[in-house]
Amino acid sequence: MKKSSVCVLGTGLIGGSVLRAAAAAGYETWGYNRSETGARAARADGFDVDGDIAAVLRRAAAADALIVIGVPMPALDSILSDVREFAPDCPLTDVISVKAPVAAAVRKHELDARYVGGHPMAGTAESGWAASTADLFRGAAWAVGVDPGSHVDPWTRVVRLALDCGSVVVPVVAAEHDRAVARISHLPHVLAEALAVAGAGGGDLALGLAAGSFRDGTRVAATAPDLVRAICEPNATALREALDDTLRLLSDARDHLTTNGTLGNLIDAGYSERVRYDTLQRWDITDIHPGDHDWLERLREAGQRGGVIRDLT
Amino acid sequence: MKKSSVCVLGTGLIGGSVLRAAAAAGYETWGYNRSETGARAARADGFDVDGDIAAVLRRAAAADALIVIGVPMPALDSILSDVREFAPDCPLTDVISVKAPVAAAVRKHELDARYVGGHPMAGTAESGWAASTADLFRGAAWAVGVDPGSHVDPWTRVVRLALDCGSVVVPVVAAEHDRAVARISHLPHVLAEALAVAGAGGGDLALGLAAGSFRDGTRVAATAPDLVRAICEPNATALREALDDTLRLLSDARDHLTTNGTLGNLIDAGYSERVRYDTLQRWDITDIHPGDHDWLERLREAGQRGGVIRDLT
Repeated sequence: MKKSSVCVLGTGLIGGSVLRAAAAAGYETWGYNRSETGARAARADGFDVDGDIAAVLRRAAAADALIVIGVPMPALDSILSDVREFAPDCPLTDVISVKAPVAAAVRKHELDARYVGGHPMAGTAESGWAASTADLFRGAAWAVGVDPGSHVDPWTRVVRLALDCGSVVVPVVAAEHDRAVARISHLPHVLAEALAVAGAGGGDLALGLAAGSFRDGTRVAATAPDLVRAICEPNATALREALDDTLRLLSDARDHLTTNGTLGNLIDAGYSERVRYDTLQRWDITDIHPGDHDWLERLREAGQRGGVIRDLT
Repeated sequence: MKKSSVCVLGTGLIGGSVLRAAAAAGYETWGYNRSETGARAARADGFDVDGDIAAVLRRAAAADALIVIGVPMPALDSILSDVREFAPDCPLTDVISVKAPVAAAVRKHELDARYVGGHPMAGTAESGWAASTADLFRGAAWAVGVDPGSHVDPWTRVVRLALDCGSVVVPVVAAEHDRAVARISHLPHVLAEALAVAGAGGGDLALGLAAGSFRDGTRVAATAPDLVRAICEPNATALREALDDTLRLLSDARDHLTTNGTLGNLIDAGYSERVRYDTLQRWDITDIHPGDHDWLERLREAGQRGGVIRDLT
């Protein structure tokens, strides 16, 4: 089957990697990047990336390309206005780290009929086109929306793109996605920042003694601050809930240290949950097909239980 | 110069790696391990490790070996009784993760005249002889005590061993060591455990979406719980202080999320401290020699400012 074409808006680390991976998988690809520096770097690598959003989107409309929004959250509203103006009928997805706020913006611009949200769970502490690679998503989980009202055609194209980029697809609705990533992506960022500050509170002596546990625990604090805020802050409600849980766990450990010199049951609990993570078995969803009766609800329920989609046949 | 001999008590990950590294550096080495399984594994790899503590220590006394205590904190008191009984005049060090409680126990057993504390800042989530390697300490910082009253001969032998194992030596007094490692070693353990629990609170969906930030942030939660407790809990006071700082940082971020949907200044602060850590320059202490006037106090002050010892000449 001939592959459809893919138009990526915003060719930073994630968007740029989608462009590269899609091209490597045989899609016709092109993209837009606001910064001319970034666009030029992509062109120098042989990719068709331009700063003229109208031209880029008119081409998408003409080709019925799948549009992938890869801009950070603060730039979303403006880019959706452009999509609405120049390519309102294209299938549309995004790779932004929250889903409910993106879906709300998409609805506001009346683009929801052909929209299916996405979120590839991959990244590095780097950013920009220079950090993008064609294999960033290989073996990664790629969350794809199964929210009520999703349509089969755009959904199928988004899932196919994710699979062609080497990912496995986790079907999930927006609100549940946002609560999950608050815990396993946004909270790790916040804890890494706090650890970096608390560690440095010990001065050069402490930093000079720091080894693997501090290095790994603060790794993502090396991410550009604007990017971290753009990733975490749109998910404020779910992140606050995850932070409240963490504050309870740490306060409890702190109180145990005070009263009896132990860390309470935190160490056993943390160990057993890390083992659970290490030994988690993904299982393949094979019996639910897009368009089947109740397909969205059934996929949602399968995703909650750890099910993934590995192919679409 | 002929190398002195080294006797390691407790041949787990750290002690076993000291034994291997010292042997590789040309020391005559032997050791003790309480568990016969561990001792047998070491012997199978060609190392002279025995379960007879009296015999092992008598040999140390006869050879004036440097004794390295590598048992976890809960086993320290018993092993010091043995040292006191069978080899009270040997130079003595340890590789335990806190220093003030070890020094107190050493004083209680009247072994302080020949004792100089040590702490190589290296490890993995694994434990036991099977995880030990000769190059674990290569490039690592190795904290060596410069507490008032330390004597030149044992101090020099401990520093030489650390250097021969490939480490750089950070001179530090016990209380300052303990406050520093609370922040860059014990706190990372506690945060990793809390992150593992809070992340798993999102169920299999969240764990299935987890990627690099969660994996790295929880890595050390895979360490055996007994070992984590033995590392962190003897440092309760300093760890509580570091935890209090962390709780303040996280509560402040949480309050900002509630009132204005931002994380306050935590992200900028964390980024700049991580950059500080990444760009920290060690500098070489070259002008202070053991036995010089005020050598201990001058080494302490140099260590506070990021100075390290790379050779002893």
